[in-house]
Amino acid sequence: MDSADGLQTPQLTFEEGVKAFFDSAPPFENGDGISEKLKQFIAHNSSPPDGNARRVVCVTSGGTTAPLEQRCVRYVDNFSSGHRGATSTEYFLKAGYAVIFLYRRGSFQPFCRSLPDDPLLECFESTSDSNIRVREAHAEAVKRAIIDHHAAVADGLLLKLPYITIFEYLQMLQMTAMSMRCLGRHAMFYLSAAVSDFYVPWKDMVEHKIQSGQSDLLDVKLVQVPKMLKVLREKWAPSAFCISFKLETDTNILLKKASTALEKYKMHAVVANELSTRKEEVVVVTGSARITVRRDKSTNDDVENPLIKLLSGKHDSYIEESSR
Amino acid sequence: MDSADGLQTPQLTFEEGVKAFFDSAPPFENGDGISEKLKQFIAHNSSPPDGNARRVVCVTSGGTTAPLEQRCVRYVDNFSSGHRGATSTEYFLKAGYAVIFLYRRGSFQPFCRSLPDDPLLECFESTSDSNIRVREAHAEAVKRAIIDHHAAVADGLLLKLPYITIFEYLQMLQMTAMSMRCLGRHAMFYLSAAVSDFYVPWKDMVEHKIQSGQSDLLDVKLVQVPKMLKVLREKWAPSAFCISFKLETDTNILLKKASTALEKYKMHAVVANELSTRKEEVVVVTGSARITVRRDKSTNDDVENPLIKLLSGKHDSYIEESSR
Repeated sequence: MDSADGLQTPQLTFEEGVKAFFDSAPPFENGDGISEKLKQFIAHNSSPPDGNARRVVCVTSGGTTAPLEQRCVRYVDNFSSGHRGATSTEYFLKAGYAVIFLYRRGSFQPFCRSLPDDPLLECFESTSDSNIRVREAHAEAVKRAIIDHHAAVADGLLLKLPYITIFEYLQMLQMTAMSMRCLGRHAMFYLSAAVSDFYVPWKDMVEHKIQSGQSDLLDVKLVQVPKMLKVLREKWAPSAFCISFKLETDTNILLKKASTALEKYKMHAVVANELSTRKEEVVVVTGSARITVRRDKSTNDDVENPLIKLLSGKHDSYIEESSR
Repeated sequence: MDSADGLQTPQLTFEEGVKAFFDSAPPFENGDGISEKLKQFIAHNSSPPDGNARRVVCVTSGGTTAPLEQRCVRYVDNFSSGHRGATSTEYFLKAGYAVIFLYRRGSFQPFCRSLPDDPLLECFESTSDSNIRVREAHAEAVKRAIIDHHAAVADGLLLKLPYITIFEYLQMLQMTAMSMRCLGRHAMFYLSAAVSDFYVPWKDMVEHKIQSGQSDLLDVKLVQVPKMLKVLREKWAPSAFCISFKLETDTNILLKKASTALEKYKMHAVVANELSTRKEEVVVVTGSARITVRRDKSTNDDVENPLIKLLSGKHDSYIEESSR
């Protein structure tokens, strides 16, 4: 696999690249419905019946796909279980935030991460009188998952929006950001999704399934997805507190890349994590510090617990700054 | 996206290509455990306590992935929900077969296909006394899924083996085929999985995550997966009754490609299906006929019901042929 330096492509400015991406996207289905849900959710949380306005965080979770064919059979996928986003959502709710959970369909859901892969078949069994019951070992986890999850949704504190492709993801992120503008500094973006770096523009895609057998080799050429973090910060949500993530398998380049991202996209913090140790520790990189956050093994805690406490505190300071 | 005709690659014979594929695969984990499960399952069904030996079918289901990186973050995926394989498994069990269900982790499971995407959260609700119960609308479907699924597994009639990558899929298919050789003509392969046509050999893969930002374009070169249907028929399971599938989005080339596959890989039948109508009708292509199989809309039947009846009948004839 090589970077195809020799290929001729028109040089686009950054703005042209962003426009080209959205122009090349397939039609966004049910945009009006999603827009209405967002509006109601934000109204509910910014002026709730009890008078205590909540801060709102948009948590992105799971990986995006880049289709290779219009009638999609094949696609390039970015692996992400969604464990980080789902777990963080629970701690954001605990910290008093309302959460817009923008997740890859089929990835981990908040309150469900301790359940096995296929919870219905794994956690339940049949009884001798032809009925079903929860297996003893899973009883508490299943009950908590259902009760806590439904309570957060019913109380209007958790809005779930599923995506699959990079097109859907960025269309929904834009829509969410525009809806959250009215919250000013009380809005946060916690961008833990694994977003495709490369895509095939919709118009360049073959309509039908790519045929094998015509050659021994398949050569797939993908173009870079414009860095939407920059657009999010500058245009979509200029006042929001923005956290992005950097995941690498090579520790040698991780912190350097996190610092570069912080500066380049003007993030308020970048969470650096290494694939093999990401559930144990992360490093929060800000303009002034690199803070290592570790989970407390003695209490079997999640690393997301101290992480969200730290970020929530930084968000407090960010909100206070503006009133000085 | 182009076929890269101009690229120089060593020309391998077919046998060399097969060897190169398996040599290039990552180590197969838990091979001994799976081999032992297969042995027990086949022994149980070929000489069961009641003396009535069962025919055994290996149903493959879902899509395979081709990793682009050794420490896998990105991969090319083949879309398949696994609906065909899961539904067919139910009808094979009904027709008296024992089923080895080789499925993509996370794809549809037998008896569960009428449930929503996320059955635990969608089908259950909390009660006022802090307990949980099945929602009325899903009660029957949930009960049937759990009871029927667990009964098939408990009775030793359903063995489930999950895979993710093309490497795991072909390693397990080979292992399954070798275990089923002792069944002779009583074995069937029903190959409904969407198998990658192209892959990146393990040794050619970069170890770490591919870096974006070094170029505007990413050029991914994949080589063809050897046509293992041929190896299955000739080497792994020469006496078994073999059904393969052909899925296309372009009806114009579908039947021609199905006939070519039938001849080239010496399948006993090829099931041709078109992406948009695949739940309504399929065409079974054999050496002597093309039989269109349609679902009965008036009874809201599945197309897999008449399909499995037809194929099971053809398998009967195939078994009888040998005793003439």
